[in-house]
Amino acid sequence: MSERLVIDDIDYLVTCDPQNRVLRDASIAIEGGKVVEIGSSGSLQGTRSFSAQGRMITPGLINTHTHLAMTLLRGWAEGVDLDGFLKRVWAAEGAIMDEATCKLGTELGALEAILSGTTTALDMYLHPQATHQGAVRVGLRHIAGPIFFDFPGLDSLQWPDRIAFAKSWPLRLAEIGGPWVPTYLMPHSTYTDSPEHLHEISEIAKELDAFIHLHVSETLAENADVQGRYQKSPVEILERSGILDRHTIYGHGVHLSDSDITITAKHKGAVAHCPGSNMKLGSGLADITTFLDSGVKVGIGTDGCSSSNDLDMWQAMRMAAHLIAVKRSPSKVDASSIFRLATIDGARALNISEQVGSIEVGKCADLIAIDVAKPHLTPIHDIFALLVFAVGRGDVTDVWVDGDHVVESATATKVDANEIMARSNERVRALKSLEKSL
Amino acid sequence: MSERLVIDDIDYLVTCDPQNRVLRDASIAIEGGKVVEIGSSGSLQGTRSFSAQGRMITPGLINTHTHLAMTLLRGWAEGVDLDGFLKRVWAAEGAIMDEATCKLGTELGALEAILSGTTTALDMYLHPQATHQGAVRVGLRHIAGPIFFDFPGLDSLQWPDRIAFAKSWPLRLAEIGGPWVPTYLMPHSTYTDSPEHLHEISEIAKELDAFIHLHVSETLAENADVQGRYQKSPVEILERSGILDRHTIYGHGVHLSDSDITITAKHKGAVAHCPGSNMKLGSGLADITTFLDSGVKVGIGTDGCSSSNDLDMWQAMRMAAHLIAVKRSPSKVDASSIFRLATIDGARALNISEQVGSIEVGKCADLIAIDVAKPHLTPIHDIFALLVFAVGRGDVTDVWVDGDHVVESATATKVDANEIMARSNERVRALKSLEKSL
Repeated sequence: MSERLVIDDIDYLVTCDPQNRVLRDASIAIEGGKVVEIGSSGSLQGTRSFSAQGRMITPGLINTHTHLAMTLLRGWAEGVDLDGFLKRVWAAEGAIMDEATCKLGTELGALEAILSGTTTALDMYLHPQATHQGAVRVGLRHIAGPIFFDFPGLDSLQWPDRIAFAKSWPLRLAEIGGPWVPTYLMPHSTYTDSPEHLHEISEIAKELDAFIHLHVSETLAENADVQGRYQKSPVEILERSGILDRHTIYGHGVHLSDSDITITAKHKGAVAHCPGSNMKLGSGLADITTFLDSGVKVGIGTDGCSSSNDLDMWQAMRMAAHLIAVKRSPSKVDASSIFRLATIDGARALNISEQVGSIEVGKCADLIAIDVAKPHLTPIHDIFALLVFAVGRGDVTDVWVDGDHVVESATATKVDANEIMARSNERVRALKSLEKSL
Repeated sequence: MSERLVIDDIDYLVTCDPQNRVLRDASIAIEGGKVVEIGSSGSLQGTRSFSAQGRMITPGLINTHTHLAMTLLRGWAEGVDLDGFLKRVWAAEGAIMDEATCKLGTELGALEAILSGTTTALDMYLHPQATHQGAVRVGLRHIAGPIFFDFPGLDSLQWPDRIAFAKSWPLRLAEIGGPWVPTYLMPHSTYTDSPEHLHEISEIAKELDAFIHLHVSETLAENADVQGRYQKSPVEILERSGILDRHTIYGHGVHLSDSDITITAKHKGAVAHCPGSNMKLGSGLADITTFLDSGVKVGIGTDGCSSSNDLDMWQAMRMAAHLIAVKRSPSKVDASSIFRLATIDGARALNISEQVGSIEVGKCADLIAIDVAKPHLTPIHDIFALLVFAVGRGDVTDVWVDGDHVVESATATKVDANEIMARSNERVRALKSLEKSL
């Protein structure tokens, strides 16, 4: 008999399946990284077992927009407007963000992510090969991808180098291994990538059968800039350049016009909604109710720690719910829909809902255990309201990615957290002298 | 030598004193429930010691507006507008909120509060003697007070009973004992208490040297209702009735006019800002920058769990910061000011800043320890940004109230948490049948 893990005595099994079932006293069998059977407590046999007594088991959370390496810049640019923010962040990136530091920062971010119950993250940053190696080492399902700017960035790559690197990306992904991820290309935005370059990227994406992620309409200033240069909105540029033919997911999408929304829906596009970052940076409040009503897919993201300060998807869920109440009405808030945005609908937004996002036979075993026997989670009148408005990072005890037990009793199993924290603290000392000059 | 506790090897001591000092490698001596000395690590002697290595020590958080007994209704009224919300909550209160249940719910709420690092809470609810007994048993500094409505409430008290009870309140407080608290009277609001009754309350408050807390201008509908009945705003009624002569703190204060703000500042009044509840219920977004600029004191509150779902002051701080960025500008957000709202400025808003809210020699030893050796709190570029935007309930390891170690290694020391949770779960079963009829 091959290795077969049974998670047994599950108090509440939140499946996020099409019927949105919540099972009491349930049990899950996992083989070859997949969920192979779901039954009642005590009904399944395995070679190993894990008791989930007093726990809730849910799908792992899916962070659809972040920059993990920037975890090293947590709290680095505070109380400043966008100009001041960019000045400080760019200076710090210039000072420390070499390839090795990108890997280290991603290890730190991936560690934070899995400990808080995030099992999949879409991560846009420089040196994606290095960041991917770092995140895979920690055990995260890590969607990285080649990044594109018109100009040489901190990575010093010229345009032809970026193109060559992109074409080699599937091979590099295969070499690194780790949990399966789709192929993504990540042009930074319509204000840093010309329409011609975007078209070139869409052609490569077609060749590679890749999806696309980029920043879109995060601020009104961005929209005005792009409109001024091209007499088109960012979304209109994406449509003309062929980008939208690649099941694209937008980072932010705060300021989409009605026409932008219609175009996005027509092309089965998605928005990675980042409520915490948008509030903190004063970017605006995205109206995701309209997106969803119009057929635009929506996932939730934290953004990077330079703006959101942490990678806590529980926070992001709660803020997403609050913003619906603020922009529309409290009666428009359905906690179960919010939790689905952070799980199965996030997977849909990333075009990976066949593989992850719900607990169903045949899907990857990306699961988290939540200790609900706590005063702040007592009593339970509404399971989804509990998940969205009361559960937090500190309640996640165990995490599995592809059935691999990457967090056990709130401790990462594949890496030494203290060692990663120590190297991170050491590396950012280089910013001390910079601090004085800013 | 009398008992003297030394908290030693403190990595970061966040004092919230007038100079807002943060000391590295510090030590605190506590005697008779008071901070008696602050020094460098290893410099102080005591009869007992606590090592705070790798920890941050800060003042305990101060929740300036909550209804602890309603913790039993966490998640009970979700996805409804205000009418639907009140219908569900009132039905549930009618079904279970007798005196014993108020005590039990307050024990559960106080337990959640102290475990998350809250050491003081102002708690408005029915049967304050029972709630106070419950909270004191858990170890919270619990500011309760007689509640007033024109009509007999669930507590069946007629107006003369309320007056008699209020006059006896200082005596009852003394009988119950527990951490020192000021005397407060708590009329519910200007829409449930007539101007004449409010005047009567202000006279009793003068006799008792008591402060006053009530709901003020939480929603536009409330303002319209009161304006329609009395041709005055709630604040104008409070001024005329003498209530504002009692250093009053308003719950919410979302919709204060410029004139209301001027009146409030003139009377040294305060607002208990509840950003989470205000967003979730769609009440509006209070502009605390204007309050502060106008000289109105501001504290932070969670409100009760029927609307905010938990009692997490870390969440409330983060949302308060985000709302300043949204309503004003990110450059107006100063994390250190936000943390002070939740500590020393909250104490000022409650008129108890001589006793609590900062770590200074002579003040009550209300302290919390935060484990900062965690991936999501690494690295530390900005201590106050870390406290406001990254630290959470799960990072609080130890809590002292009056030097009493009420939470030790994330476990309550004075009560059996499991027993309180079990009784709470049992008690709310009575709501199951009600659920079907709503």
